Amino acid sequence: MQIPTPPVNIPLLGYWLGIAAVAACAAAAVLEVGRKRFDAFGVVVVAFAAALGGGTTRDLLLGRQVFWIADPTYLIAAALAGIAAFGLARRMRLPLDLFLIPDAIGLALFTIVGTKVALNEGTHWTVAGLMGVITGVVGGILRDVLANEEPVVFHGELYATAAGAGALTLLGLLALDIDPRWAAFWAGSLIFAVRLAAIRWHLRLPEFQSLR
Amino acid sequence: MQIPTPPVNIPLLGYWLGIAAVAACAAAAVLEVGRKRFDAFGVVVVAFAAALGGGTTRDLLLGRQVFWIADPTYLIAAALAGIAAFGLARRMRLPLDLFLIPDAIGLALFTIVGTKVALNEGTHWTVAGLMGVITGVVGGILRDVLANEEPVVFHGELYATAAGAGALTLLGLLALDIDPRWAAFWAGSLIFAVRLAAIRWHLRLPEFQSLR
Amino acid sequence: MQIPTPPVNIPLLGYWLGIAAVAACAAAAVLEVGRKRFDAFGVVVVAFAAALGGGTTRDLLLGRQVFWIADPTYLIAAALAGIAAFGLARRMRLPLDLFLIPDAIGLALFTIVGTKVALNEGTHWTVAGLMGVITGVVGGILRDVLANEEPVVFHGELYATAAGAGALTLLGLLALDIDPRWAAFWAGSLIFAVRLAAIRWHLRLPEFQSLR
Repeated sequence: MQIPTPPVNIPLLGYWLGIAAVAACAAAAVLEVGRKRFDAFGVVVVAFAAALGGGTTRDLLLGRQVFWIADPTYLIAAALAGIAAFGLARRMRLPLDLFLIPDAIGLALFTIVGTKVALNEGTHWTVAGLMGVITGVVGGILRDVLANEEPVVFHGELYATAAGAGALTLLGLLALDIDPRWAAFWAGSLIFAVRLAAIRWHLRLPEFQSLR
Repeated sequence: MQIPTPPVNIPLLGYWLGIAAVAACAAAAVLEVGRKRFDAFGVVVVAFAAALGGGTTRDLLLGRQVFWIADPTYLIAAALAGIAAFGLARRMRLPLDLFLIPDAIGLALFTIVGTKVALNEGTHWTVAGLMGVITGVVGGILRDVLANEEPVVFHGELYATAAGAGALTLLGLLALDIDPRWAAFWAGSLIFAVRLAAIRWHLRLPEFQSLR
Repeated sequence: MQIPTPPVNIPLLGYWLGIAAVAACAAAAVLEVGRKRFDAFGVVVVAFAAALGGGTTRDLLLGRQVFWIADPTYLIAAALAGIAAFGLARRMRLPLDLFLIPDAIGLALFTIVGTKVALNEGTHWTVAGLMGVITGVVGGILRDVLANEEPVVFHGELYATAAGAGALTLLGLLALDIDPRWAAFWAGSLIFAVRLAAIRWHLRLPEFQSLR
């Protein structure tokens, strides 16, 4: 399977959408760990892990410069959003599902960007798809491990599956020579739609239990 | 101590043995987590972590390209073996010790290859031995951490000790100017034999408890 | 903010102080996990993680060669100190706070060196400060995660906060064009003093709990 590897072109809108998604992930993680008795440092660590963990893992595996070292705007956005959520949550009651929509946008965006970055490094399409999923979901896994909870992506509503379906769709559309920007748009929309449908109707993968 | 650093020559037999060991590790991990209520995604993640985690850690530490990015055959073998084990285990009762022999072969093979890869990068022999042990055992540690169990290598039957003894044997034989292929063969056989003996006779290291 | 990036000059005294701090961290970690029933292998793994984990994370993120691969003296010091603590703790009752002072020295030293190494790689000052904190505290987090305990730095006496204050002080002094050696000395002394004061008077950050 020959997949053309277009240059990663993240236009200005996409750049700020990415910053916003990082901030939203950081703020959402702070609300998630609100039940734990972490101090301010622990809260910021969890915010960083949730917002930056996926892209960091991808960059380390691909041998690229880590994205928030290349451009600290992401780091600063995660820190400010985490601190703001910390301050707000102590003063008012924030609904826990405040960030479900931004989080779904982040999942779509991170997965698409992660897949494209890997293709750009010349990886095999299987590796590129996996990198997309890693970019989308590892942040949430790290957040849960640090908060000492079972990673929700292992048995909750469709999350990684949405990312995987979107990454494969992107790879398929690129193999069909669709314009890369439209391919990214449709694959990202699919992730967003599947994720929202999964939340709305509690869609899950069947759980696995071997016969023992 | 001057250790000659031969080129890593993994002949064709060794290559396919490596692929088979990766597949066996992935399948074994799926059976191990069968008691947990993971969904299909969680199962595949655990299979990847168990089968590819050790070599990935080694490559990241050494600054090499990650081996399954350089050759996705390993990735595909782990995915297919994990999915096959997932499907089979839902239909029939598989014995949990089905994979003890392949797992011991994998431990031997991964440790020897990991040590040689590190020597090839020009590392000190202490580092090379550690890289061998890391390649052999980190996959199992990751599998247990993700499944939220205490890593079995920290207090079970000899596992890392077998790997360490084999890595040191390999380094000693190479220092004695033994032919690298024979050194690898004997050191690998030692790991395999120690591991099987440890399972058969429940050999363990003494457990540590400080006086408090 | 323009920060001059001096060459990392670790004089001979600093080098051996670093080796000693690594050894102290390894020995302290062995005493910490003495309550767990780990075998010798598990103990050595925890010693390595505690003593080398912070610097390793920093080097991986920065894309530098891992420091104990470049100079295995650190690796050997951690292994010997861990084994010595293992042997001693089985024979005599060692006070758990035996290593509080060396640990505070290690925190100061690792944080300063980590910040300077990152500045030297040309990173933004926010990234450099974060790298300092990572170098200082990640070892302790890894130790606690491997021992299956809640990371103490997330809610204990000031630890990461001391590191962060010291890293920011170092960055501020360097921005004011203070001689780099004096800047390092004062910032390191601040970390050491804050950490000891925090232990003595049980200083903590306020714990966070959202309104739910």
